Amino acid sequence: MTAATTSSAWDQARLALWSRPHLERVEQALSGWVGVDSPVLLGEAMRYAVLDGGKRLRPLLVLAASEAVGGNAAAALRAACATELIHAYSLVHDDLPCMDNDVLRRGKPTVHVKFGEADALLAGDALQALAFELLTPDGDEVPPAMQATLCRMLARAAGSQGMAGGQAIDLASVGVALNEAQLREMHRLKTGALLQGSVEMGAACGTGVSAAALAALRGYGAAIGLAFQVVDDILDVTADSQTLGKTAGKDAAADKPTYVSLLGLEGARAQASQLLDDALAALDASGLNDTAALRALAHMVVARDR
Amino acid sequence: MTAATTSSAWDQARLALWSRPHLERVEQALSGWVGVDSPVLLGEAMRYAVLDGGKRLRPLLVLAASEAVGGNAAAALRAACATELIHAYSLVHDDLPCMDNDVLRRGKPTVHVKFGEADALLAGDALQALAFELLTPDGDEVPPAMQATLCRMLARAAGSQGMAGGQAIDLASVGVALNEAQLREMHRLKTGALLQGSVEMGAACGTGVSAAALAALRGYGAAIGLAFQVVDDILDVTADSQTLGKTAGKDAAADKPTYVSLLGLEGARAQASQLLDDALAALDASGLNDTAALRALAHMVVARDR
Repeated sequence: MTAATTSSAWDQARLALWSRPHLERVEQALSGWVGVDSPVLLGEAMRYAVLDGGKRLRPLLVLAASEAVGGNAAAALRAACATELIHAYSLVHDDLPCMDNDVLRRGKPTVHVKFGEADALLAGDALQALAFELLTPDGDEVPPAMQATLCRMLARAAGSQGMAGGQAIDLASVGVALNEAQLREMHRLKTGALLQGSVEMGAACGTGVSAAALAALRGYGAAIGLAFQVVDDILDVTADSQTLGKTAGKDAAADKPTYVSLLGLEGARAQASQLLDDALAALDASGLNDTAALRALAHMVVARDR
Repeated sequence: MTAATTSSAWDQARLALWSRPHLERVEQALSGWVGVDSPVLLGEAMRYAVLDGGKRLRPLLVLAASEAVGGNAAAALRAACATELIHAYSLVHDDLPCMDNDVLRRGKPTVHVKFGEADALLAGDALQALAFELLTPDGDEVPPAMQATLCRMLARAAGSQGMAGGQAIDLASVGVALNEAQLREMHRLKTGALLQGSVEMGAACGTGVSAAALAALRGYGAAIGLAFQVVDDILDVTADSQTLGKTAGKDAAADKPTYVSLLGLEGARAQASQLLDDALAALDASGLNDTAALRALAHMVVARDR
């Protein structure tokens, strides 16, 4: 029996109980920080892109990792929101006509459909800048050295050797036959870097965390980062657009390589299950006590239906 | 006689002498940092957008301000390059078809003409992330608190209450009758925020700088930031595309409000001259000794022909 099959309804109920107050804090913080005092249309476009939608997986990973290491709560909330802003900006730009040309996201018209392409472009740009602004508040709420570490981690996760680099590989791979190693490398950057970065940023909100625990959390982040994409590929062929809140089947339509096209549906499911086992094993090896939320989030990543 | 008319050929020769080694360091640093180890096309597009072109005004402002306060040279070089990356990314995105749809920049095809829109979009995104990555190196070359301060300043200068916000106002102002106060506010954000931010980031590379000196440098930065845009508007009607290295006359063609359309050509020239005087007066009030390079850069901003 794999770990995936041991996930019980009770685990998920406990996750929901843990998540609710955390999600409320994240939503409240985002609403107070995003697009406030910005020139009117730009601020509206930024809020539209970020608020009232999304699973907030990255913020939850930051907060769970921070709790696992007894991290600074103010820093973790800022880091949580910063990862979501990077994710949100990437979706806005990814949906533009020159990229995926998608009109539906989280069940709503995409930002450029609603605000026009130019404001969508600028809103994405401004969201990326805001992420770094959130990480560097005035005053001593977050120690300066922690601010610098969080900025370093986020910049690397978002940039040309992280998310943006993965998107460029994705662009170049349409209609190209990738092998599993190449596909894995693309997703390690495109989706994995920011998910893993979220875990690492949460861990960086702690002080005096052992090197072994940090390495274990990195391993956990890498495994769920990849698992997330494998499940995304599975859902692209098994779910409908309404459940997904975005256009289903678009990878196949675009002739993009996916884990399903490479491994088959059952092979992809086995892969997701193996990655979940890897993630849970990493937590077991971390020596950290309070990893229940991280465990439950790993289950959620693999069991999700959208 | 205004300060503008006291700028002599000797001043400019001295500036050239000061600038040359600084420009060489900036070019070398950028070449070593930009688009290296990035997925092939993305890295190429990033390098194309940044290298072999541009006046490097923002880096020179960072370096001159840092020298005026006896700043950390390694931090200043990183900050100098970071401001240029933000500037370069904004040009790449600004040139896209959904924005200004420009095909010529620095005398070369724009990034999207050469690499396609999708890679141009991603290259801009990755350049913004790289700017923050440069500011947050591992190790103790740049003290962590200085890293955090530089990230804070750059994020604010680039974001929705800085450059991106100004661009959004610019977008919304085509064909709209702005008064001088509104035009000034737009440019304070669109161009001024990053120029002023460059001066402030240079100053932040020093330690123990007096509050009076920092305030004076902010005033200097605000004045030349605005002067830069006034001169841009003048050049848009007086220079040809070949000298500018970009399409001349495009503001008038787009029915955009400019200082020239508002104040007339002579009025705009008088404004630029007044702003130069303001900038130089701020330096005089700073109490700093080594402001020769900042003085010469102010003259250059107003006297430039491209």
